[in-house]
Amino acid sequence: MQSIVLFGAGNVAVHLFEAFQNAEDTEVVQVYNRSAQNLAPFLNRVPTTTSLSEIKPADIYLISISDGAVPQLTKKLSNSGALIAHTSGSNPLFQIANRNGVLYPLQTFSRQTAVDFKRIPLCIEADSREDLDRLKLVGQNISEKVYEISTEQRKSLHLSAVFACNFTNHLYRLAEKICKQNDIPFSVLHPLIRETAQKARNNSPKPIQTGPARRGDQKTIDHHLSQLKSAELKEIYTLLTHSIQAEYESEL
Amino acid sequence: MQSIVLFGAGNVAVHLFEAFQNAEDTEVVQVYNRSAQNLAPFLNRVPTTTSLSEIKPADIYLISISDGAVPQLTKKLSNSGALIAHTSGSNPLFQIANRNGVLYPLQTFSRQTAVDFKRIPLCIEADSREDLDRLKLVGQNISEKVYEISTEQRKSLHLSAVFACNFTNHLYRLAEKICKQNDIPFSVLHPLIRETAQKARNNSPKPIQTGPARRGDQKTIDHHLSQLKSAELKEIYTLLTHSIQAEYESEL
Repeated sequence: MQSIVLFGAGNVAVHLFEAFQNAEDTEVVQVYNRSAQNLAPFLNRVPTTTSLSEIKPADIYLISISDGAVPQLTKKLSNSGALIAHTSGSNPLFQIANRNGVLYPLQTFSRQTAVDFKRIPLCIEADSREDLDRLKLVGQNISEKVYEISTEQRKSLHLSAVFACNFTNHLYRLAEKICKQNDIPFSVLHPLIRETAQKARNNSPKPIQTGPARRGDQKTIDHHLSQLKSAELKEIYTLLTHSIQAEYESEL
Repeated sequence: MQSIVLFGAGNVAVHLFEAFQNAEDTEVVQVYNRSAQNLAPFLNRVPTTTSLSEIKPADIYLISISDGAVPQLTKKLSNSGALIAHTSGSNPLFQIANRNGVLYPLQTFSRQTAVDFKRIPLCIEADSREDLDRLKLVGQNISEKVYEISTEQRKSLHLSAVFACNFTNHLYRLAEKICKQNDIPFSVLHPLIRETAQKARNNSPKPIQTGPARRGDQKTIDHHLSQLKSAELKEIYTLLTHSIQAEYESEL
């Protein structure tokens, strides 16, 4: 049994807590947050505190707060003797405490949406084999997918996730705006969005690329550009079209 | 029972044929294609021809060939008396034949991947109420989602699909490249891709946007830009980041 104190009360912390509640070999013994107001989801379920002087001893101090605040809190906890691990994609494996680690869940969390943690990839890193094995055990308790990933790899993964998730969602948003401007329900696009995401997972995205840029259909490209009124959308359309054309140039 | 002659033997034609084979009130009586070589999927299942002089009479002549070639073929068939409908997103409702129509399936088709046609939105248009009802019947025979969509709306839909499907898939491809360069299996991103697409369908994409651009995290943005070696990727990252920031500016 690994005991955990969870630091933070944001989306990631809340979802991690729920996952640990359903896990057999881990126990969250306390949740800390700087302010009391976000601790509501934890009340009556686990001891909580807003004071660093009241932190309980545990095997792992798991820090799930905003990226920029992680180093300072790690420092404050560094004499505890616990393994200090953070859940951040963009922070390195720190060398601040005696024992440092990372347990980074690669997923986009919203407070409202329940997640099936079992399917969320967990990227782990630690500065000793023993602590890496410890994080592996903890990770496997809540997820089927635990990866040993270096700091450099995790940073690249975080960057690639911006392309595959954040930018992709923004393209959905732009598509939704085009639909709305023309009185088309966005739901007409739902099956296409679903199929595109599914195909990219079943194959590599490269061979399944379709559309005017892919097939070098300049007439349709010109027509689309003439339909777009916003300079910003024109620029995005042009840049991504060029990028697709460069990728498949040799095949046209 | 509506009888159909299908013109074309590409991905859309093949998938439409399979859908009609499973439908009750429609019958494909013939498939035409300019060259014999692509007619293989139809052989021994339906009469085929490569000669326009051998086209059978039918209620609907359904043209599913490359966008640019549709007007010419429509013209050649215009004296047949049949309803001449095309399946193209970017072509207008023509006024070439006596009876013109559109039956546009909004989906990305690959030859290898089976599709559940029932879930594919069909956008229909015709120049008479009678033919619109006819296309509606035919559409409802193979899909649960039939929309009456004007030419202008269909063109906008086609454009928005480029954003939601073609560009999105290219972003998956760019994410895959970043992963590969860092020895990370692309499959680590699969759950994130799945979740992002699912959330955008369950909600509007706007409120669920996450990431450094959304939360105004300039430090992470700068760090990501320094990680990207390719000028093209830097440009895409910058442009989409600015576009997200403009969308959520008032909320930061």
